Amino acid sequence: MRATALERDPYPSRVEPCPRLIPRADPVVWQTDRRPARLSETEIAYYDANGYLILNDVFSEQETRVLAQVGEHALALAGIDPETVVREPDSQAVRSIFEVHRQVPEFDALARDSRLVEVAHDLLADQVYIHQSRLNYKPGFEGRDFWWHSDFETWHIEDGMPRMRALSMSILLADNLVSNGPLLLINGSHKHYVTCVGETPAEHYKQSLRKQDYGVPERSLIAELSQQGIRAATAKAGSVVVFDCNILHGSGSNISPFHRSNLFLVYNSLKNRCVAPYGGLPPRPQHIANRACIEPL
Amino acid sequence: MRATALERDPYPSRVEPCPRLIPRADPVVWQTDRRPARLSETEIAYYDANGYLILNDVFSEQETRVLAQVGEHALALAGIDPETVVREPDSQAVRSIFEVHRQVPEFDALARDSRLVEVAHDLLADQVYIHQSRLNYKPGFEGRDFWWHSDFETWHIEDGMPRMRALSMSILLADNLVSNGPLLLINGSHKHYVTCVGETPAEHYKQSLRKQDYGVPERSLIAELSQQGIRAATAKAGSVVVFDCNILHGSGSNISPFHRSNLFLVYNSLKNRCVAPYGGLPPRPQHIANRACIEPL
Repeated sequence: MRATALERDPYPSRVEPCPRLIPRADPVVWQTDRRPARLSETEIAYYDANGYLILNDVFSEQETRVLAQVGEHALALAGIDPETVVREPDSQAVRSIFEVHRQVPEFDALARDSRLVEVAHDLLADQVYIHQSRLNYKPGFEGRDFWWHSDFETWHIEDGMPRMRALSMSILLADNLVSNGPLLLINGSHKHYVTCVGETPAEHYKQSLRKQDYGVPERSLIAELSQQGIRAATAKAGSVVVFDCNILHGSGSNISPFHRSNLFLVYNSLKNRCVAPYGGLPPRPQHIANRACIEPL
Repeated sequence: MRATALERDPYPSRVEPCPRLIPRADPVVWQTDRRPARLSETEIAYYDANGYLILNDVFSEQETRVLAQVGEHALALAGIDPETVVREPDSQAVRSIFEVHRQVPEFDALARDSRLVEVAHDLLADQVYIHQSRLNYKPGFEGRDFWWHSDFETWHIEDGMPRMRALSMSILLADNLVSNGPLLLINGSHKHYVTCVGETPAEHYKQSLRKQDYGVPERSLIAELSQQGIRAATAKAGSVVVFDCNILHGSGSNISPFHRSNLFLVYNSLKNRCVAPYGGLPPRPQHIANRACIEPL
């Protein structure tokens, strides 16, 4: 028997003319015989059902103050490779710095911190490595929307991540408030793969990291998945928001005077290393999708 | 002795080259010998300190359902005077309909409802009339920011409202959620008058109701006043948000699939009827600032 298209790749996207929902083919919480090191059964069940978990006050006030200062220093771009900097679509304001864990020693140490790594172990049931890191900055008064998307759809199509066995941790370097454009997460949306329409243009990432035009879910599907509710990931600086690689998320504008600054660390299972991108184009650069420095944590 | 400028008008704006904060010259809660008809002492004290009050579930589910339908019908613009319709700055989508209480009988009845009028009496200690009404619509996926402003600054300079003895009630016709761009209120900002810079161009309102460029507070003053915190006025449909005419407020974008629809009723004290605009230009039209139909409620 020949393998069907879905057996070859359970997560096709940007190929069919109509978008649709495909059931997730992978577990959310990967099974292991080991007892969880960090998370309670309740927390694990919540993550499984909703696709995210907010861990309050993971870092002390003192640690958080230092991390926030390190973040501010990085945003001043001293010692930062210009290639790794993404700016706002209509200004020169810094929106993200990629590969920060390899540019800033304190963030490298953070990526190895057992309080984070063990959470990744508990949920992915495997050794993990950093697939991507970035510092996201949403300035007060002028931070912009970030449209709904699944990270996994892009990582699969543009970077060649095979399966849904990765997660993001957002380490809050500033208070994330209702008023400063917090991360919005669509409850339970991680259990569906939302296919997108439209072929990906070459070197799409140079534009998409500023403002995304491809790999964008259709409004009707976003509306359908939102019936379970949308959660704003508000928490104090020093807290950590853990979310599945396939959850639909976005954020609104920030008209408040309070800047929002979060460090994102993407942990991927060692068994889920990137292969050739499923969209057929050359892979994005190393600082966006790590395939050269696979160091188990 | 000659009266000083501040004695003549305690609330100058758009005249000086530098913006500043002027202490509020009027009470927030106006005093009377009458016992409050609707509000508790705790609610009144909260309103006094913060400048707003969220009254949950003022209208029943059945009433709210009917009001929401009436709102949807109005948004279809059947029987609505095109002059009273304001559209989004970069599309033809309806953003607001003014003078809805005189165009839609159900909203006229609502403006007279004792559950609202008695709250206005409790806070303004006088007979009241409707200074302005409008239906505000923020569509799902594309509702835009609304920048920080004090209504009173505009009503004083452009419409001739003498003193701070008015308030707005926002009747929620849809759930106002963290994710759909709720009203944001700066705690305690109503106790300061924020002067704005720049002269007002003639017929400014035709543009300003879509996107405001004058009567805009400076960022440094917004930041200063925000130290007391920013409250998102989230509540279920059928709830009412009461807020002082001078509180700084705005709202972020709505990237959620959920539309936001609120009916605003501005109650003004009968002793505070509009005179010639303090900015020196001709008054704005009747549907924006009522000076012709003063009916005590």
